Amino acid sequence: MKNTSAWEEKAKLLRKWCLVSTTAAGSGHPTSCLSAADIATVLFDKYFTYDVTNPLNIYNDRFVLSKGHAAPLLYALFGMSNAYDLNELKTLRKLNSRFEGHPVPKYKYAEAATGSLGQGLSVGAGLAIAAKRENLPFTTYVLCGDGELAEGQVWEAANFASYHKLNNLVVILDINRLAQSGETMFGHHMNEYEQRFRAFNFRVFNIDGHNFDQIDQALEQAHSHAGLQPVAIIARTEKGKGVSFIENKEGWHGKALKEDELKKALDELGPINDNARFELRKPATTTVPSAEVKINTDIKMDFDNAKSYATREVFGEVLAQITQHTPNMYVLDADVKNSTFTEDALKVTPERFVECFIAEQNMVSVGAGLSRIGKIPVVATFGAFFMRAADQIRMARISEANIKLVGSHVGVSIGEDGPSQMALEDIAFFGALPDVVVLQPCEAVSTASLVPQMVKHNGMVYMRTLRPKTKLLYKPGEEFKIGGSKIVRKSDDDMLTVAATGITVYEALQAADMLKQEDINIRVVDCYSISPIDRETLQDCLHTTHYKCIISVEDHFSHGGLGDFISAAVSAEGVYVEKMAVTHISQSGKQEELLKDAGIDAASIAAKVKELVRSMEQVHSHA
Amino acid sequence: MKNTSAWEEKAKLLRKWCLVSTTAAGSGHPTSCLSAADIATVLFDKYFTYDVTNPLNIYNDRFVLSKGHAAPLLYALFGMSNAYDLNELKTLRKLNSRFEGHPVPKYKYAEAATGSLGQGLSVGAGLAIAAKRENLPFTTYVLCGDGELAEGQVWEAANFASYHKLNNLVVILDINRLAQSGETMFGHHMNEYEQRFRAFNFRVFNIDGHNFDQIDQALEQAHSHAGLQPVAIIARTEKGKGVSFIENKEGWHGKALKEDELKKALDELGPINDNARFELRKPATTTVPSAEVKINTDIKMDFDNAKSYATREVFGEVLAQITQHTPNMYVLDADVKNSTFTEDALKVTPERFVECFIAEQNMVSVGAGLSRIGKIPVVATFGAFFMRAADQIRMARISEANIKLVGSHVGVSIGEDGPSQMALEDIAFFGALPDVVVLQPCEAVSTASLVPQMVKHNGMVYMRTLRPKTKLLYKPGEEFKIGGSKIVRKSDDDMLTVAATGITVYEALQAADMLKQEDINIRVVDCYSISPIDRETLQDCLHTTHYKCIISVEDHFSHGGLGDFISAAVSAEGVYVEKMAVTHISQSGKQEELLKDAGIDAASIAAKVKELVRSMEQVHSHA
Repeated sequence: MKNTSAWEEKAKLLRKWCLVSTTAAGSGHPTSCLSAADIATVLFDKYFTYDVTNPLNIYNDRFVLSKGHAAPLLYALFGMSNAYDLNELKTLRKLNSRFEGHPVPKYKYAEAATGSLGQGLSVGAGLAIAAKRENLPFTTYVLCGDGELAEGQVWEAANFASYHKLNNLVVILDINRLAQSGETMFGHHMNEYEQRFRAFNFRVFNIDGHNFDQIDQALEQAHSHAGLQPVAIIARTEKGKGVSFIENKEGWHGKALKEDELKKALDELGPINDNARFELRKPATTTVPSAEVKINTDIKMDFDNAKSYATREVFGEVLAQITQHTPNMYVLDADVKNSTFTEDALKVTPERFVECFIAEQNMVSVGAGLSRIGKIPVVATFGAFFMRAADQIRMARISEANIKLVGSHVGVSIGEDGPSQMALEDIAFFGALPDVVVLQPCEAVSTASLVPQMVKHNGMVYMRTLRPKTKLLYKPGEEFKIGGSKIVRKSDDDMLTVAATGITVYEALQAADMLKQEDINIRVVDCYSISPIDRETLQDCLHTTHYKCIISVEDHFSHGGLGDFISAAVSAEGVYVEKMAVTHISQSGKQEELLKDAGIDAASIAAKVKELVRSMEQVHSHA
Repeated sequence: MKNTSAWEEKAKLLRKWCLVSTTAAGSGHPTSCLSAADIATVLFDKYFTYDVTNPLNIYNDRFVLSKGHAAPLLYALFGMSNAYDLNELKTLRKLNSRFEGHPVPKYKYAEAATGSLGQGLSVGAGLAIAAKRENLPFTTYVLCGDGELAEGQVWEAANFASYHKLNNLVVILDINRLAQSGETMFGHHMNEYEQRFRAFNFRVFNIDGHNFDQIDQALEQAHSHAGLQPVAIIARTEKGKGVSFIENKEGWHGKALKEDELKKALDELGPINDNARFELRKPATTTVPSAEVKINTDIKMDFDNAKSYATREVFGEVLAQITQHTPNMYVLDADVKNSTFTEDALKVTPERFVECFIAEQNMVSVGAGLSRIGKIPVVATFGAFFMRAADQIRMARISEANIKLVGSHVGVSIGEDGPSQMALEDIAFFGALPDVVVLQPCEAVSTASLVPQMVKHNGMVYMRTLRPKTKLLYKPGEEFKIGGSKIVRKSDDDMLTVAATGITVYEALQAADMLKQEDINIRVVDCYSISPIDRETLQDCLHTTHYKCIISVEDHFSHGGLGDFISAAVSAEGVYVEKMAVTHISQSGKQEELLKDAGIDAASIAAKVKELVRSMEQVHSHA
């Protein structure tokens, strides 16, 4: 049943609020909202099933605004769906308003924080794959701009969606021709978009995005979930549609109308029914994911004291034990499951394992989508290759996604593969993001204890795992916790403290052995929790060693690593932190050779301890 | 003229060395080399024009090994081209060998460091666009694996190549079906690749990658540069081709043959002519880019003392003045040229401006390609969106690329757009990479002085520019240098030092004014060079203020920022560094509101100074 005049009326009210709110804010992207107003109207008026009183209901359809700068459109859509009073939109972009410049989680109707472009289709694919795997009947709609289709992540997501047969995923492309600084790559050449999405195996509808009949027909067919392909509705639109002096004009990206321009624009729109509303159909069922995460922490692992284990292997085994008994967990990998050992989880819970192939950006944003509906995604690849998804991780953090990222093959200790495969800046990046937990267990027992805690922690966690095998340091049953550390060498006469993490714990212990021969005792701390760092233990060490000095030693670049966390934690008058870390690009070679080459091996640590003790003795003898 | 039996002979020798070198190393990816051996043989034997005595000759054809794990193939190819003795390949993956696990710059025939997948086509596009713009006759060949085609960057590069009509770019796709942990997304369904590259407007040849005739015909046509499209040769191959027990078998990715397996494999290959060689045709002309960078540093800028300027605007104006007189400079932007102000350079040197659209990954790797042939690429986008290309920046650093990256809109001071647009982890990331210079001038005069120095510096530089306008602090002619700083407030009776950078310099000065009213004097330092940090000046401050204390204050997250650089520089007994920085995800709001919300505004600084002075007075009075 067609409803064109009612749609015109509603689209007009949407346009009004996009214009009014941005003018009230004095900034924003009204023209980017107007091009999509007609499509959004038909979607919300006829097809979108949603309970506005219950945004987390897992039976709701999903609307992902990939072009996050069109936030006012999103806010107006849910306002017109009776989620809140439209007048609240006048707080747009003001301090403490839930209506920020780009959507963020305090706005509960946003499926993810967006605003870094090209990520929405991946988030939508994350929502859609959960629905597909768990037989949830909802449809995920993603609204993309045309400029953002230049982002490679969109094509990662497109491959992912068709490979995994996500016929419950509908991407609507708002092809309004104009990007921020000029025309997009393809302007209004609709065939360019059509041929790409067809080649990526989408069901494609090429329509006039301001023709209600065409919009309706495309959405009707998309809504049917016919066949096994995801759907792309490619809509030719005009930026600023509906207001003559901004419509399809360059120079109007990201500009709010001035008061007089707004008046002129509203005059052009003509009489408006301010009471027009979308009456969204509610889903028949309501289920909200539990806020409480129940995970299986009863891990059964027997380690042989005579053997060595790679922490990545232990991670895989423990993960598999947890996923088996934790139905809301998903495991994602980027074609390195036999290196990260997520293949263990694939074996026992294939229904919740998602092969993402070599496309880390999409993988992380799929994780963000899964997190939105209460899943706990564990996402793994080489630590170095998480840098490929740094922006997606940044946005997942802004989205408050509950994601666990596990990076294997960290540091120069990986050996022969060389610098391209070594994660050496990962602690700096993850550590900079507020409240992200960064862990690096150095051996099997602590790994087995920390993996369940990582999964249980509510929020983003990054865990570094090691390629080489390491000896056991701890006994079964010892306690490890986020924010903790372990003193692994101690005497009553320690000169100073060496704080290590991961592979360097072993180098520090070996250095302690070497120094012992020369009657120099040192304290050695295993900082398996890098952030938060165990300030208390480190401060205690400072007070109970001869010198108020900590040497940090880590298989990571010097800036932004463990050493800086320690410095920040104990910084106070009279404390001296010396950082030992990797200071140049490494190379191929054996593990021991590369640790030595980087100056973080046992001999280098022992030499540094002796140098510092000597210099501090001199200072004290002069004092 | 067909030459099949000679090609068979040469391909056999290539295969032998791929197997022998990896077995000698005890690790590596022989099967990934063998699938491409036949194609590479024809390319090098008949089409590749190159002077092995002069890898930097800008008339050489270019061979980019995107699938970097096939490094032994690359090493064998140039060895068989008489660049060095093939026996040197037995040092593969050994410490200090130029033959690393994945190609790095000390191997002079590598166009870029590769090994993080999906970057080679962008590097090739960088080489090809320089050739196109400057009428250099060479052809760029890129060898990609099939697994890496899942990386979105490949499609960014494909769009870029066809948009810019790079008909001098030939990508060879080695479709060997098997990735690391299983079959690729599309296995041997060649049509999947063909339809994608056709949709992205490539001239496509779909061939059997082990049929010398088909290879020859495809390369012949690719070589012709007919039409305006880039070329994709999609070659169906077998992983491990030529050795029955590894050919097209799962479980053989990244595994070297054991000695007995090698013997068996070589037996299978049969008699080999160890003297088979490629006789590469040399280019008719030799020109090597000058190692010395001559740039125009005679910048003419008049600033009005009564006015304020955004550093991003000043950057744009200065950049345009330099590019005009520096013919080897290129400027790249990702559709934000009117925000970063690289549009100024577009106006004066459009022939060396490259619009990369919203595809930051490709942009950075194109920059790496340009750098390889002596260009100086200045690459700009919002600071936040450089995180999209973090892995490409990491690889560009490993490649020793001479790239300048300029990130605008840093920190919470951007205001209403909200957290997705704020660069707040950029210093942590760039600062972690060894020897990368990180600059942040806070006003016009210092910006005008530092931009030419950035361009002149040989190596990677990251400059942060500000969205808001700021007042002049300095007089024309004042000196600024990489590694420098400026004391902007000083008295004989300073209690401590506040070290600021960028927008917080103004907050610190305002705090100094407020404290002055209460008879508290502070030193204020403008740390416009964040890395390297001006250790000397800061240490001098410590010795000439009342307390040995520095407060760092920055519009960046707490970990990995300016504060950690300062801590590391002055760390020693008796020094206290207090970090003031952003500790939570920000929001939309006015600049002043957000600085206050983050606790880095003048009032917060003044309060912190008073708190510290009070506590240190107590410590001293108790002492």
